[in-house]
Formats: sequence, structure tokens, C-alpha cells
Amino acid sequence: MFPSDRCALMMARKIIVIGSGAAGMTAASAAKRTDPEANIIVFTEDEHIAYSPCMIPWVLEGRTGWKDIVMHDVQFYSRERDIDVRTLTKVTNVDGNARTVTAGGETYGYDSLVVATGGTVFRPPINGIDLKNVFIVRTINDGKRISEAMATSKKVIVAGAGVIGLEMALSIKNSGKDVTVVEMLDQIVPRIADKDIADHVQRHIESMGVRFALSSPIRSIDGDGKVKSVTAGDKKYECDMVILATGVRANLEIPKMLGLDIGQLGGVAVSRTMRPYINGKEVNDIFLAGDVVQCESAIAPGPTMSQLGSTAVKQGMAAGKNAAGGNSESGAVASPWVSVIGDIHIAGTGLSENLASWYGIKVTSGKATGYTRARYYPGNKEMIVKVLADAETHVMIGAQLIAGEDATGRIDWLTGAVINKTKAEDFLANSENAYCPPTSMVRDVVISAVDDLCNNLKG
Amino acid sequence: MFPSDRCALMMARKIIVIGSGAAGMTAASAAKRTDPEANIIVFTEDEHIAYSPCMIPWVLEGRTGWKDIVMHDVQFYSRERDIDVRTLTKVTNVDGNARTVTAGGETYGYDSLVVATGGTVFRPPINGIDLKNVFIVRTINDGKRISEAMATSKKVIVAGAGVIGLEMALSIKNSGKDVTVVEMLDQIVPRIADKDIADHVQRHIESMGVRFALSSPIRSIDGDGKVKSVTAGDKKYECDMVILATGVRANLEIPKMLGLDIGQLGGVAVSRTMRPYINGKEVNDIFLAGDVVQCESAIAPGPTMSQLGSTAVKQGMAAGKNAAGGNSESGAVASPWVSVIGDIHIAGTGLSENLASWYGIKVTSGKATGYTRARYYPGNKEMIVKVLADAETHVMIGAQLIAGEDATGRIDWLTGAVINKTKAEDFLANSENAYCPPTSMVRDVVISAVDDLCNNLKG
Repeated sequence: MFPSDRCALMMARKIIVIGSGAAGMTAASAAKRTDPEANIIVFTEDEHIAYSPCMIPWVLEGRTGWKDIVMHDVQFYSRERDIDVRTLTKVTNVDGNARTVTAGGETYGYDSLVVATGGTVFRPPINGIDLKNVFIVRTINDGKRISEAMATSKKVIVAGAGVIGLEMALSIKNSGKDVTVVEMLDQIVPRIADKDIADHVQRHIESMGVRFALSSPIRSIDGDGKVKSVTAGDKKYECDMVILATGVRANLEIPKMLGLDIGQLGGVAVSRTMRPYINGKEVNDIFLAGDVVQCESAIAPGPTMSQLGSTAVKQGMAAGKNAAGGNSESGAVASPWVSVIGDIHIAGTGLSENLASWYGIKVTSGKATGYTRARYYPGNKEMIVKVLADAETHVMIGAQLIAGEDATGRIDWLTGAVINKTKAEDFLANSENAYCPPTSMVRDVVISAVDDLCNNLKG
Repeated sequence: MFPSDRCALMMARKIIVIGSGAAGMTAASAAKRTDPEANIIVFTEDEHIAYSPCMIPWVLEGRTGWKDIVMHDVQFYSRERDIDVRTLTKVTNVDGNARTVTAGGETYGYDSLVVATGGTVFRPPINGIDLKNVFIVRTINDGKRISEAMATSKKVIVAGAGVIGLEMALSIKNSGKDVTVVEMLDQIVPRIADKDIADHVQRHIESMGVRFALSSPIRSIDGDGKVKSVTAGDKKYECDMVILATGVRANLEIPKMLGLDIGQLGGVAVSRTMRPYINGKEVNDIFLAGDVVQCESAIAPGPTMSQLGSTAVKQGMAAGKNAAGGNSESGAVASPWVSVIGDIHIAGTGLSENLASWYGIKVTSGKATGYTRARYYPGNKEMIVKVLADAETHVMIGAQLIAGEDATGRIDWLTGAVINKTKAEDFLANSENAYCPPTSMVRDVVISAVDDLCNNLKG
């Protein structure tokens, strides 16, 4: 007989992952790379795996096909990575004390458990929400259902003017439909963009034929089996279809089975190693990642829900490594985002003015307008950069950017400054930009915006 | 009578700027914004002002015209900014004790002097260097002379495979000429790029029909009044034209008149406020900026010559503000650069492996290959990112990037990390990238490269 520790050493580590989104599949692959001997099973209710839900608007308008956005199938994971993925399989029970997961009628033991159950689109508690042709956008099958309904629809209402709502609205407009976006608040992208930036983007989208109804909370959805109209604010909008882009709430069914502490924002509270807590005590063998968690904000004094694919991958990487015995951290987040809206890219990072004021942070802003290439280089596109600092500490807390091209690298650059709690004056003194006429101005608009910010902080 | 200090307060500050490149014109404008009452004169030997020499290759291949790259003329500066620019005017004497500048036969007093005399292309001391059709590339007039000679030329030799040499080679190739680049060292972009990255770019340029002769120092230029051939290494290359892209040396005529300390790299040594020294003592009323200075490196233990348009603007801004009584600093530089070479963007920041090893820094590198957009988004382009860290401290000291698009923002992002002396592990734990399928992978290649670097630092 072997002593028990020797025995444990010889047994392959059993890792179970619940969820096959960006967080879950990243965690599974990272775990396998960390411990190639590990025995890994992924349970998912979805039919497809390893695809990007962010691609759905682009597929709907025909830029590429449903098959093209699925990177790998179950066979690939089995053959190439020795990861056992069970699709269309609901987890019916989890027992954190016994370390078991029950799915598809069988019970499996685990050494480490990764919970990456993601989120679900919020369905406002109103009449008619369950009518036919009222859709959410989350999975490929959601996308296919929308595509099918579009074939016989003319008028579409998109509920919610966040990034996903805007991308869906334009995609459906580009497919030849009549589209109105209804939004409860008085600006588009209300949580993460400032009104001046949002208004600029709204005018651009309107110029492409999409209509907006702001300050118009949805009161009811009406129809007869199938949707016929939406009442939002004090107006009734006839339509054949409704797309709910009303934000995402964490899926807490599994975390609640495990008794994990739920944070004040409605996500599972986790440490930097992506471990949860039970009654404030960190749990050693469970890891979470992606839309289901709330995590540390790099700027705000409290926690945040990031709910971005890029955050899910980053957290999934740490969760997977740690589930396989590694020691990896995923730091506090600034949650940079970018979206392509017709001809323009919009991007942001850190806090918006609205969010900052909600936290009681007094904000000073700076803004500059210029071009993505040298002023005299053919084909240059306009660029607007806005940067925000804490008016007292001068620390940069956020930025937003509109550009005809190349927004992403620039917002990542500003994200670095925000995460490092850089003072505006230090950014101005120390930052440099690469210059070549076809790719930037000799002084990048980002730096000009911070110069303006420094002047405003003085004033 | 007024007491003398009261008198001084009532007299407009007299600022003289020598040089009308990026540094000089930026300094003049920044000085005027800082002290709108100041009396500002700019002396320049050039005929044109306020243009980007970096545009010359693009004008030569016909993307835009000579007139289009001149942003402002003398009249604009006089009318809009109250700055008096004297073109085609050589400064023949400067007296730092008397605070006078003599130019065009007259002598002018100053309160502050900005010396932005730039650099000159190095002319190797070889036979034939003064033959007809041997050109440098520095001013619009240089460009016009090259353009004129191209009309009757078929074979062109470019001497030097730095960024300017490569851009000129491609521009001339794209104009239908036969082009060979001869380079003394055994790789292209030898000072700022690593051999693996350089070789990749070289193959790309060769695929566009440009030939290279590496390890081939120029021994002589031969001809009969006009150039007929170049002998480089042990081979003779027939040609009708030669473009010297052999690097830039600081123009020290004015600094030497002033007795300023010249640094070990051949540029004027300056403090962060862009003030020079005389026998080690900082001079209060003279400011320098641009290609004429050597400044603090953000990475290397010693000074560096940045010699980039973007650095010139940054330093010119600080020099101009300070010349007008402000208090501005220009920090240590990482000198990010970018170039568009046919279909690809190449970019870099900080030290290359070659430069790091010259400084005695032991380097560990990381590399990742991916795409500029999501893997499945149509039109995505390949991207290669290489990152370098000090093998002992794990501090990131440089990066290089090849991408089909959008290199600039990403290299600026990495530049922030290098300037802040970020450890690779901290970058990996804390960095985030914005994600949208048309603009990035869900995990940007930059972050994947740093992940590889962290693995290599462990091993």
C-alpha cells in the first residue's frame, strides 16, 4: 500500500469546469497547459462552444457565417487538448463539501471546480416580455432565431442603447430593416460614456438611419401571441420584432448551490486568485471567472462588474491555472471597451463622468480633436479624445475616444495609465507616441488631450 | 524713471528661436501661448517651414503633393500667431554673454534663446560623395531635387537600411525604379530592431522587388561628374542615383559658438527643462530641443539620441514654455517609432537586443503571433509582438511589433510600460485590452507576448 499522499500524487487531478463561454473554455485550456496530466471535463448547456457572442451582430449583417465564428468543436478539444466537453448538459447539483457535480444524471467528483456560468440578459418584469419575436442576444442559437425572424420582419425595436444594443441596431438597419432604439436614460451608452461623447456617436448612428427614443423606459410589449408594438415612455412603437439589450445579470444558480458569498453588485465576490468566499472565508478549491463575478475596480473604491469578453479570458486564464495547482493573479480592472459603429470606432476605459460622480469623485476633464494620421496624410480620419482625472489627486481615472480608425491600441495605452494610477502631469511629462505620417500625428491626440486636462487642472 | 525691475516687467520678453523644424516651430508656438506678449523671432536657413520631412517618401511616390505637406507659411505665423519667421537666413554669430544673435547682417538681443538646429545626414568620408545625383533626404528642397533626378534615372542605390532608407527604397521602387539597399551591418534596421524581426521585414520588402546587400559598407562612389556606380562590400553596383540614409549627426555650429557642453554621443547635453550646461553648470536662458540634443534614456543607464519628430515636438513644447517663463519638463525617453512598409506596419520602443547587450543588460524575450482583429473577423491581418525584459530585474525594456494594421497605439501602450519600468509579471497581472471583433483579438497579441515573456523568465 502507498501512503495516502503518495497515492494522491499518482492520481490525475480532476478538474470540472461549468460553462463554455470565454471564461470557461479559457480556464479549461489554461488548466491543461498548467497540469497536462489533469483530467478535465467541461459541462455546458449550450450547443456550440468556443465562439464569440460579440460576433453575432456582424454575422447577422452577413459579414461572415455562423460556422465561421466557431473556432473549435467538441472533437477538437477531445483530440487536440484532451479536454472532455459535454454540450447540452445541464448541471443539476453541485456539492462543495463532497466535491461532486451532478450533470446529465451522473455524479462526478472533482479536486478543483471552475464556475464560469456567465450571465443572462435582464428581462424587464413587464407584460408581453414572453411574446413571440422578443429576443435576447447571447448565444449562436439566439442569433439564428433572430436571423430567421428578420426574414419576415420590417420594423424592429432594440431595447437598450448600450454597446450591444447599438451594434445590433446597426446590423439590423444594414440588413434593410426599420430600426428604433428605445433607452430608459437620456443618453446612449449611459453607464460607460459621457453625454458629449455619446451624443456625437448618436448623431453618427442617426445619420445611418437608425432612430432613437431616449428617456423612454419600456412600459409594455403588446401583441397577440407575436409582438405587435412596444410602449416606451409615452409612445407606442409598432414593430415585428424586439431585441432586448437590457444588460446582463450574473447566473447565480450554481454559486447559490455552493453557498458562495454574493457581492453587493449581484456577482460572486472573488479574490485576485479568482477564489470565492463562504461567510467571508476564502474557499480553496473553487474558482470563478467572467460575467458571474464581481471583482476589484482599478479606480473606484468599491467592486465592479466587468462583464467583457476580454475580462472573462483574463480571469479564466488565472482561474484555470490556479485550478491546476498554479499561482496566478488577475488584477483590479479598468474594463476598457471598444465598438465599431459604422465608420467610427468608439472606445473607453475606467470611469465615465456619471459613474465617477456616483462614487462621489470630483472630475476634471480634458479633450482634444485631431486625426488618426498626419494632418496632411491622405485618408486621415477624425479623432476625439477625452480624458478624466480626479480633480483633487490629479490621478487619471478614465478616458473615451472616438476615431475613424485605430482606437483600440490607444485606449489600451490610456488603460495602462489608469490602472497605474498615473497623475495627468506625469503622463504629460513622460509619455511618448510613435510617429509616422500614415499612422499618427507627430503629437498624438491622446497626448494633446492630457495636455488640455493638465491646463484644466491648473485653472 | 522706473526702477529697473519695474522696467523689465513692462518690456516684452524677447525670444529668439534658431531652427524651423518640428522642435523650433513647436517651441515658438508654445512660447507664444505661454507669454502672449512675447516678441518672438525664428531664424532658419530653410526655404519652407512647418512641414514634416517624414512625408518626403510618400510625396515622392505621389500620394500627395509638396504643397500639401506644408501646414503653414511665414504669413500664417505672422498673422495668426504674431511670430516673425525669417527664412533663408543664416545665423552667423551668437553671443551667450551679450545675449545677442547675428543673422542676415543684423544683431538682435534676446532674453531667452531656443537652439533647435537639428541634425545633418552623415556623409561618409569616401571618394565620390560629392558627385551629382548623390542625395540626402532632409528638406523639401532635397525631396524636389530627388524627384527631378528620378525623372531620368533607372537604377537607384539607397545607402543605409534604417527606417528612412527603407521608406525611401520602397517609395522609389513604387515609382518604377530598380532599387538596391546597401547596408554596412548584417541586418536591416540594425540599431532599433532585433534580427528576427528585421529579417521578417526584409523578406516582405524583397517580395516587393527591392534588393538588399547586407554586410556591405560603402567603399566608394564612382562617376564622371555624375554618379555611375557604388562599390559596397566587394561588389560594384551600377546606378544613376544614390540616396544617403546614413544616419543623422547633431548640428553643433551654434552650440559650439555658445560654448555649450557636448555629450559623449555627440549631442548637446540638456536637463529635463531642456537647458544646456557650460562646464557642467546649467545655463538659465538657453533651451535646446530636437535632433541637436542628447537626453536621458528611460531604460539605458546612460544618455540617448532620440532624433525622432515626435521627440522633437515634445522637447520643443517644454523648451518653448520654459523660454517664455514657464516651468515644464520633458522626461526620459523610450523613443517609440513606427514605419509603414508596404502592407505592414513595423514599430518598436525602448532597447533592442543589440543595444541592450551593448549596455551589458542580459535580456529575456517573449514573442506571440496572432491577428489585429478576431481570428474569424474578415480582413484580419497578421501581428507579431516581441517583448524584452531585463533577465535579472524582469523590468520590461523594449518591444517590437509587426502588424498589417494598428501598430501605433499598441507600441504606445508598451512604451508606457517601458517608461514606467513595469515588471513583466505585473504587466501580465494588471494589463487589459479593449475587445471588439473588428479591432482586436479577445486577448490582444501584446498580452500573449508578455505571457510568453513571463514563462521564459521563469525557465
